Amino acid sequence: MAREIAEQPAAVQRTLDRLLPQRESLRELVGERRRVLLVARGSSDNAAVYGRYLLEVGAGVPAALAAPSVATHYRARLDLTDTLVVSVSQSGSTQEIVESQAWARECGAATAAVTNVADSPLAAAADLALVTQAGPELAVPATKTYVTQLAAVAVLADALGAGIGDDLARVPEEISRLSGADVEAAARLLADAEHVVVSGRGLLMGTALETALKLEETCLTPVRGYSYADLRHGPISVVTSGIAAVLVAAQDGPLAEPMVELAADLRSRGAHIVGIGGGTAFAEACDVHLAGPELPEAVAPLATIVPAQLMIERLARDLGLDPDNPRGLKKVTQTDA
Amino acid sequence: MAREIAEQPAAVQRTLDRLLPQRESLRELVGERRRVLLVARGSSDNAAVYGRYLLEVGAGVPAALAAPSVATHYRARLDLTDTLVVSVSQSGSTQEIVESQAWARECGAATAAVTNVADSPLAAAADLALVTQAGPELAVPATKTYVTQLAAVAVLADALGAGIGDDLARVPEEISRLSGADVEAAARLLADAEHVVVSGRGLLMGTALETALKLEETCLTPVRGYSYADLRHGPISVVTSGIAAVLVAAQDGPLAEPMVELAADLRSRGAHIVGIGGGTAFAEACDVHLAGPELPEAVAPLATIVPAQLMIERLARDLGLDPDNPRGLKKVTQTDA
Repeated sequence: MAREIAEQPAAVQRTLDRLLPQRESLRELVGERRRVLLVARGSSDNAAVYGRYLLEVGAGVPAALAAPSVATHYRARLDLTDTLVVSVSQSGSTQEIVESQAWARECGAATAAVTNVADSPLAAAADLALVTQAGPELAVPATKTYVTQLAAVAVLADALGAGIGDDLARVPEEISRLSGADVEAAARLLADAEHVVVSGRGLLMGTALETALKLEETCLTPVRGYSYADLRHGPISVVTSGIAAVLVAAQDGPLAEPMVELAADLRSRGAHIVGIGGGTAFAEACDVHLAGPELPEAVAPLATIVPAQLMIERLARDLGLDPDNPRGLKKVTQTDA
Repeated sequence: MAREIAEQPAAVQRTLDRLLPQRESLRELVGERRRVLLVARGSSDNAAVYGRYLLEVGAGVPAALAAPSVATHYRARLDLTDTLVVSVSQSGSTQEIVESQAWARECGAATAAVTNVADSPLAAAADLALVTQAGPELAVPATKTYVTQLAAVAVLADALGAGIGDDLARVPEEISRLSGADVEAAARLLADAEHVVVSGRGLLMGTALETALKLEETCLTPVRGYSYADLRHGPISVVTSGIAAVLVAAQDGPLAEPMVELAADLRSRGAHIVGIGGGTAFAEACDVHLAGPELPEAVAPLATIVPAQLMIERLARDLGLDPDNPRGLKKVTQTDA
């Protein structure tokens, strides 16, 4: 896991070099279609959450996440003739994602596949394959494959009008800069907590969900990833002393200030806060702060996950666990046995 | 909370009597629009999750959940001229839902509001108000307002082609029948657990999320609601002895059998299972089983939540908590302070 985290700058650079020239093909594939439906599970689903926000906020394209069981178990007949369906799977061979893509095509959708395996069934069956260039990922927890998926959906959003090409070019260097973060204090704070919650919002929501999932899988502790708003809407009542909250934020954008307020609120309830990213006020509102990238909110998720990955890898080792091979997980996940 | 649970059969009957005659108006409002976008938070969001599945699976209408921050913070400009936006809020005065509905209208959507308060801002601003007839709900945890929201979205799906009118007519009696369930053993199993996870899938996914949210809010314990597939896709590694899993299932439908397999899998990992609903095989796969309704999967969620509510109310009292007034929650929730 540590080695693959270190490989991320080069993996993202290779992925951008490969996919940015496909923007014209993407625009042709979309044609008059007006919306995007993303299909994914696990870490890929967290990349899709970022894609959904970026498409709506950055490109003005209505986007949503599919419920795969609608395709695979209910086999609902939906009219998707106005839709680009984007399937995201690092292996390209998770059966329910392959099946969902076939279903989408039967429903009239155009299909694009984001996968790290060029000769996978998912890539072969798609109208257009966006093949990420992470190289083989041996550790079970997805790191470089996840970050290159974020790059792929960012390229898609840019193709559809997000206007983030220049910012994307700066991402590999920012990932590289953050790869040496000192995460010892953050890992120690989490090791001492009874429960951990993770929160973020908007474009950083997927980063929060991915941080929660990785913590849970790698450190074998139940972790809840909440949107800022869902946390405020009820579960905040369970936040007391003994709880650690990991908050992820961007430097800019309309949610930067609300995240500062959330940190202060959670702290007043006795929670200990690890903040990742955000600006000065956010850093000051946290007990332990890990700097994020010098990037605008629209592309910040590609680098903000890096300190989180390092923190989780460190925590796993501090707990005596093997971060590369968490108990009970396989690299290619099948939903149905 | 107990009194309001007991009032649910009458509340649902009144709601159906009021809303079923609005089906023609709903069809007129939808006109040529081809999709539905649901906007909600908290328990209302869990009702919206049911609506999303029922619209797609039962009525063949593409449906999705909105991300409210796209409207309220990013103020993205999306073309929603082909969309019916359905806002769900029991109070009808949660500011971000009211704002999101106004935004949807500016984006060209037709708007319908599901609310329990006829003279609320949300109802006043909607093209069509579907006013649930739960009556005043005094306990903070939503019970009868949630179930009547399910009835409202079921009426919407029926108006758009789900063909469930006859099944809906049987719901109040089934809710009544389940309102006397003996939940003592189920509550005791949960009281003894270190962690609780809740899972369901497809049409029952919203029921699982609502059960998790209510457990968390009412019993002040962090609870994770997973879809069947998301649980299998990673977090299942945290399931060991000491974990209790609450599984919700329907008697029929394509997910009944997979839920039996999930129960067996979780049990083989040492978890203790409370099963709600499902058929005989499902009941046998669980440590404690609470019978669900004699209703098809499409409308089963309206009654399957009842044993869960009773179990949670009992657990809160067993833990010395006041189920009517959980710490730190208010009846009308505002996301931003």
